[in-house]
Amino acid sequence: MSGKKTVSETLHGGIRVDFDADEVLYEEGTGHHRLALIRNRLFGKVLLLDGAVQVTSADEFMYHEMMAHVPLTAHADPRDVLIIGGGDCGLAEEVLKHDRVQRLTQVEIDASVVDFSREHFAEFNAPVFDDPRFAVEIADGARFAAETDRRFDVILVDSTDPTGPGAVLFTPEFYGNLKRILRPGGIVISQNGVPFLQPSEFKTAMGALASVFAATSCYLVAVPTYFGGHMTLGWSSDDAEALHVPEETLSARAAGIQTRYYTPAHHRAAFVLPRFIQTLFDEAVT
Amino acid sequence: MSGKKTVSETLHGGIRVDFDADEVLYEEGTGHHRLALIRNRLFGKVLLLDGAVQVTSADEFMYHEMMAHVPLTAHADPRDVLIIGGGDCGLAEEVLKHDRVQRLTQVEIDASVVDFSREHFAEFNAPVFDDPRFAVEIADGARFAAETDRRFDVILVDSTDPTGPGAVLFTPEFYGNLKRILRPGGIVISQNGVPFLQPSEFKTAMGALASVFAATSCYLVAVPTYFGGHMTLGWSSDDAEALHVPEETLSARAAGIQTRYYTPAHHRAAFVLPRFIQTLFDEAVT
Repeated sequence: MSGKKTVSETLHGGIRVDFDADEVLYEEGTGHHRLALIRNRLFGKVLLLDGAVQVTSADEFMYHEMMAHVPLTAHADPRDVLIIGGGDCGLAEEVLKHDRVQRLTQVEIDASVVDFSREHFAEFNAPVFDDPRFAVEIADGARFAAETDRRFDVILVDSTDPTGPGAVLFTPEFYGNLKRILRPGGIVISQNGVPFLQPSEFKTAMGALASVFAATSCYLVAVPTYFGGHMTLGWSSDDAEALHVPEETLSARAAGIQTRYYTPAHHRAAFVLPRFIQTLFDEAVT
Repeated sequence: MSGKKTVSETLHGGIRVDFDADEVLYEEGTGHHRLALIRNRLFGKVLLLDGAVQVTSADEFMYHEMMAHVPLTAHADPRDVLIIGGGDCGLAEEVLKHDRVQRLTQVEIDASVVDFSREHFAEFNAPVFDDPRFAVEIADGARFAAETDRRFDVILVDSTDPTGPGAVLFTPEFYGNLKRILRPGGIVISQNGVPFLQPSEFKTAMGALASVFAATSCYLVAVPTYFGGHMTLGWSSDDAEALHVPEETLSARAAGIQTRYYTPAHHRAAFVLPRFIQTLFDEAVT
């Protein structure tokens, strides 16, 4: 229509989401690794990696809040938290809102992603880098999970989609290693895609999680720039108790935490799936 | 990327959703009224009117089920149902799944939309045209609401977006007329847009509904082709009781009805809003 430059999300064959670039802030790469950061009137700063939206400044809060606050309010004592991936540090910002968290370790494979995000997404991740509880380790997340001697109460797998380099973060071997480094009562949350457009990826991931953990579930978040309706976040633990924490307890643990998406009531509602997602889940875990 | 033909959703300035047309089934119009029906590998048949997706055969069930089954299971005795708009007749199909509905009247302004949908979307609307309880009236919905002597238990406003000819279906005058033709205990459901991208439209509509009805609420549905995260459906009544029907009662009323999105548990969960939508709602109705 217009002669304006656009960048396109091309993750799902058959459709594309084009973002008008009111300004191109950064662009690099050819072939396998293409990075683009643009400014868009609806979504603010939009970061695309290899044709898939990674984060936007306007809607990052939805995904990051639901990934962080659900396990952190459900867990009785989430002292040690691990993030695998999460390069833009928006998830770390949400985790560190919890005073009960004593130490947050983020294992990110690519130092340049963290540096880039620190420079360009300071509006949400600036508090992270001044927080003494936060440490980034530049390492392969799968290898870290296989080798570390440390143990964690909550592990958040903030991965890219299960194609290319991120695929290793969706395997039973990886999930087995997460179980190894989880303390009793610990919770793992994983990005499990958009079931309407990625039903087989969803089922594969949920099936693998259910083969490793005793209590597996999933919950919903609707993020505008993750096209395709509800996205699901996987919940895995060897202890089902944290799935049934009363709303009053969640509220007490969330007291004083500013949110724009998460509420304790919505926390509980987000586990109640539309039938077609529940059916995919049931098929995957039985 | 490919040389393939695409059609684009251009409802929201700043972004576009492009659908690859594996086949163009129909195309007409210039200027104000542009109709395109294509086949897409992800969404099946996709109907666009003036650059806005109206319906797709792959995800129509989500919106239509939530718009129909929520009020029809919440209402104690939904004998007479009115649909305003709803030209593709996918909503009518869901309504007529309820044996308790004795008569369904659909008031659609454009006969050609119904004829077109009957021809091209028979996979979901075929049962409607054989059902003796169903009647289409080709008329202006706003005028119908102002003039009819009939009364209804449930009214479903399945409108286009609040721009252009559909704008009249978002005014206090129209809502006042709906109240006039609603039986005691009756429920009005309205399409209230995607609050993240249309916050002022959402607030205007909810504010107008709250100025007319004693009990106003809204609930969520996430439809892939309605870009922008959660869409909201407005709930209006002069009686708050139907907002609090226990899940067992909803289940009894939904017994035997085949769904792919709706469940009685999800019905209740869908009213629990993310904070930013709850805040917009609160601002609108107070």
